[in-house]
Amino acid sequence: MLLLLLDLLGIAVFAVSGGLVAVRQRLDIVGVLVLATVTGLGGGWIRDVLIGETPPAALADWRYLLVPVGAGLLTFFFHPALARMDPLVNVFDAFGLGLFCVAGALKAAEHGLSPLPAAILGMVTGIGGGVIRDVLAGQVPVVLTSGELYAIPALAGSAVAAVGFHLDAPTAAVAVPAAALTTGWRLIAIRRGWRAPIPGS
Amino acid sequence: MLLLLLDLLGIAVFAVSGGLVAVRQRLDIVGVLVLATVTGLGGGWIRDVLIGETPPAALADWRYLLVPVGAGLLTFFFHPALARMDPLVNVFDAFGLGLFCVAGALKAAEHGLSPLPAAILGMVTGIGGGVIRDVLAGQVPVVLTSGELYAIPALAGSAVAAVGFHLDAPTAAVAVPAAALTTGWRLIAIRRGWRAPIPGS
Amino acid sequence: MLLLLLDLLGIAVFAVSGGLVAVRQRLDIVGVLVLATVTGLGGGWIRDVLIGETPPAALADWRYLLVPVGAGLLTFFFHPALARMDPLVNVFDAFGLGLFCVAGALKAAEHGLSPLPAAILGMVTGIGGGVIRDVLAGQVPVVLTSGELYAIPALAGSAVAAVGFHLDAPTAAVAVPAAALTTGWRLIAIRRGWRAPIPGS
Repeated sequence: MLLLLLDLLGIAVFAVSGGLVAVRQRLDIVGVLVLATVTGLGGGWIRDVLIGETPPAALADWRYLLVPVGAGLLTFFFHPALARMDPLVNVFDAFGLGLFCVAGALKAAEHGLSPLPAAILGMVTGIGGGVIRDVLAGQVPVVLTSGELYAIPALAGSAVAAVGFHLDAPTAAVAVPAAALTTGWRLIAIRRGWRAPIPGS
Repeated sequence: MLLLLLDLLGIAVFAVSGGLVAVRQRLDIVGVLVLATVTGLGGGWIRDVLIGETPPAALADWRYLLVPVGAGLLTFFFHPALARMDPLVNVFDAFGLGLFCVAGALKAAEHGLSPLPAAILGMVTGIGGGVIRDVLAGQVPVVLTSGELYAIPALAGSAVAAVGFHLDAPTAAVAVPAAALTTGWRLIAIRRGWRAPIPGS
Repeated sequence: MLLLLLDLLGIAVFAVSGGLVAVRQRLDIVGVLVLATVTGLGGGWIRDVLIGETPPAALADWRYLLVPVGAGLLTFFFHPALARMDPLVNVFDAFGLGLFCVAGALKAAEHGLSPLPAAILGMVTGIGGGVIRDVLAGQVPVVLTSGELYAIPALAGSAVAAVGFHLDAPTAAVAVPAAALTTGWRLIAIRRGWRAPIPGS
């Protein structure tokens, strides 16, 4: 129950970020709602399609659909206020990222994937929605180009979760530190301005 | 039989729209044929992959593949004439949209999806091909940005079909008014210049 | 064993091409590694998702994951040297293309697809990774727009493999000439500057 609530909260925060990108790119209401939905749910859809878990839970369950649509409508009407809350959105986003990565890695591991693929699918769960968002909005995915530490903390937490599952550790004993690693690293990176390396020339 | 013919006609019209975008963006013959094919069939492929109906019927059945390839070749050679028929293409496109959405929503509902996901998958069937077309052509999907009423009528007809299926109404009694709603609304929107709302600033 | 080695070599070459695009577009290290991986493995993932073979072998098997990541790291650190080897990369790429197309077409045919869809999936296996690479890098897929003969040789070899399988020819007797057709045509096209037609105006 708590997990469901946390999951829906993470989806809502991701959806707001998708809606804000849509507003900034001057999309119409359809664009705002579609970007909110794919940002909130797209990472899980990619993971579920790749592991063969179809239809994805976050498509078949209407509660998962209503949350990003609601968040998208909120963004459509109140985007100036939400845009001003950007730093707060970033903090919630870091929590959503930790949650999504760990849940995604564990789901992949439960489907029999070994640690490396499970860790990658955890990262995909966390960053995939944002990648679809940016591609649809006509921009190079920010996670690939900005030098922000986003995917690397995502992969780190996913790897901890996947390896812990592989070693038969109790789920809670794995999930909490794994999510904390992703979220904590991400928050510190924001605060300190840590950057991912870019190619030398 | 009639349904198959209508379906193939809808695919052909969508494929012509894909080919015309490719010509306008100065793609080569591969680009014209690929865009024609993904525009005609891509929405159904996304739906089938998401509901786990693989390989998609419109990939395994060669009749479904020959139609967009033929439409693409036609567009490659006769695009000036086809581009002049743009208003006519728009009218046929509205019929194709109604058909695709309703068929997509019913197929999703038959797979056990509840009305809300089935309606969304109906809309995805109708608009998904055009979204892939635009992403591959390097433009923001027109359905997300133009303010044209396209996705909203698509969702409306899909919802009628999905709810009707859920209430055990006879298929024909559901499909015809549902498709008429999408197509009619779309045609009136074109004629009257109705627009979807864009975010205030 | 030889096949596995050839396959991994093809993936490595494709991954280097993905990494070089990422460097040229000024992506960060995450962008380089992600583009290397999707370019090396993405075509096979699309094919496997479309035929319902999930999770894709090239996702579940860690050897397939380490190769593009390694190639991506190599590209990140040594891209000036690799970029100077561009003509050589093109030659290896032609071999990778032949291999991927034939392997993809045969896998689709073994899944019961008839020759036309199997041939198309062979081509998708060969060109799909590059398409994802270009979409993520924010450019129109080069295979659709450049007029280079790339997809057409890919489809030709895939078709030979798919038809041969359909006629129950021994695999080796089909695979070798089919791959040679794709690779040879591609190499001659590079050497002679043969072009695919573009639409007249």
